[in-house]
Amino acid sequence: MKIVFLGSGNVATHLSQALNRSTLNEVVQVYSPTAENARSLAGKLSCGYCTDINDVDVNAEIYVCSVKDSVQQQVWMELKRRFVDSGIDVADRIVVHTAGALAMDGEDGLSSVFSNCGVVYPVQSFSKQRAVDLSHTPFLIEATIPSTLEKLRELVATVSDRCYDATTKQRNALHPAAVFASNFANHMYAIANRLMEKNGLPFEILIPLIQETAQKVMEVTPVAAQTGPAVRGDEVVMRKQKNGLMADGNDIELEIYRLVSQNIQAYRDEFQRES
Amino acid sequence: MKIVFLGSGNVATHLSQALNRSTLNEVVQVYSPTAENARSLAGKLSCGYCTDINDVDVNAEIYVCSVKDSVQQQVWMELKRRFVDSGIDVADRIVVHTAGALAMDGEDGLSSVFSNCGVVYPVQSFSKQRAVDLSHTPFLIEATIPSTLEKLRELVATVSDRCYDATTKQRNALHPAAVFASNFANHMYAIANRLMEKNGLPFEILIPLIQETAQKVMEVTPVAAQTGPAVRGDEVVMRKQKNGLMADGNDIELEIYRLVSQNIQAYRDEFQRES
Repeated sequence: MKIVFLGSGNVATHLSQALNRSTLNEVVQVYSPTAENARSLAGKLSCGYCTDINDVDVNAEIYVCSVKDSVQQQVWMELKRRFVDSGIDVADRIVVHTAGALAMDGEDGLSSVFSNCGVVYPVQSFSKQRAVDLSHTPFLIEATIPSTLEKLRELVATVSDRCYDATTKQRNALHPAAVFASNFANHMYAIANRLMEKNGLPFEILIPLIQETAQKVMEVTPVAAQTGPAVRGDEVVMRKQKNGLMADGNDIELEIYRLVSQNIQAYRDEFQRES
Repeated sequence: MKIVFLGSGNVATHLSQALNRSTLNEVVQVYSPTAENARSLAGKLSCGYCTDINDVDVNAEIYVCSVKDSVQQQVWMELKRRFVDSGIDVADRIVVHTAGALAMDGEDGLSSVFSNCGVVYPVQSFSKQRAVDLSHTPFLIEATIPSTLEKLRELVATVSDRCYDATTKQRNALHPAAVFASNFANHMYAIANRLMEKNGLPFEILIPLIQETAQKVMEVTPVAAQTGPAVRGDEVVMRKQKNGLMADGNDIELEIYRLVSQNIQAYRDEFQRES
């Protein structure tokens, strides 16, 4: 399938390259208003690029909008105008976005602009610095038309063996869960790193613990896997640690410590009642 | 080295077996007041057990106290009495504890009871359900006597290739960092799991994201690795997610969302000022 990518951020960078690796796909163009980013990504893909949406190739099959959420709707409108100005029937082009938090249906959804559209949302955290193996990354897809849904399933199959049908409502429910599981878990590492640095301890000491904690939830539910002073109800250790955080002036970290410890105990109590 | 284990919890279970696997060590006895636990662990180790501290074998070289923090001091006192009653010079026995939050020095430290003592603290999260590979687990050790420190280093080397000297002060500083990196990160998974379950979504969709987030911090610092709406300053997405949490009555989770997002932005700002 001939694909145009709109955007040159983390998702666009990783997804476009993964798709382009398959002989079944060809990314034919990258659009990004930032020339440097557009050129850089197009270089990796060995394809053309443009910085003006009026130069977007209108003869591709799929248009993947991976721009920032805040400018998605604007890009959709501009892309539609580009199709109309070129005499293209927009129903003949598949337009998808890759955002967890944006709708397909409804008045602010992609389908309010394009009748033949869908969503291809990779449940993964992308950083430019780091290669990600997408082959087992779950993709949540939806589409307005069954034949388009089938095409998106085929498209995803060229990069990953895990594809799930999910409505906008389910994707919206998953997105905050992903924020907790990834961004917030990562921030717990960031706080740990800060506490280690303040005491001249290398962060690497915590790496095996971090890996083991992440691997454990592949076998055991997180509530059942929980360890540490909060779940044990060890008030002496908790008081000591809270005093330490307070003494070092880590006020917000202290408040996070209090709240999360309290919530760990609430989850434990509920888990024990149920089991 | 001949070793007696006091305790039969998660740390005792994993550490005793790892030590016993080396031909250089022999766990000769397990003490635990809970007969079932003592018998079960002794069975795994093919050694004897006792439930009365007055039956502890006084002829071992090292005594490893892996009981709950709240009863450690009581066990130290009882073990000392056992030695004294048996006519053993306590300076001839090495006694260690394995706790991150307990002191060696000072009036509440192990050295207030035993002159020849130390700490062997594995920086790892242990669950009974799950085998842990200790071979790269960092151990923090200290001892009152240089020759004992050397013995502890040799002991650790039989199970792990990572051993660090660390004072009580450093261990006390590391312990809350480990709580954030492991217990609190795990609780973020627990919240994510709850949000997924509430919406009929399988938790397994988040597993690759969790693994990638954990693996990323082996290469990039957590602050530099951060992604998501908070670090992007995406207020629209954040408001939507907060409204969703509120609508579902997840009040504490909402408060955690607010606080952690705020803290992510504070760390980002500091990171940008520094770099």
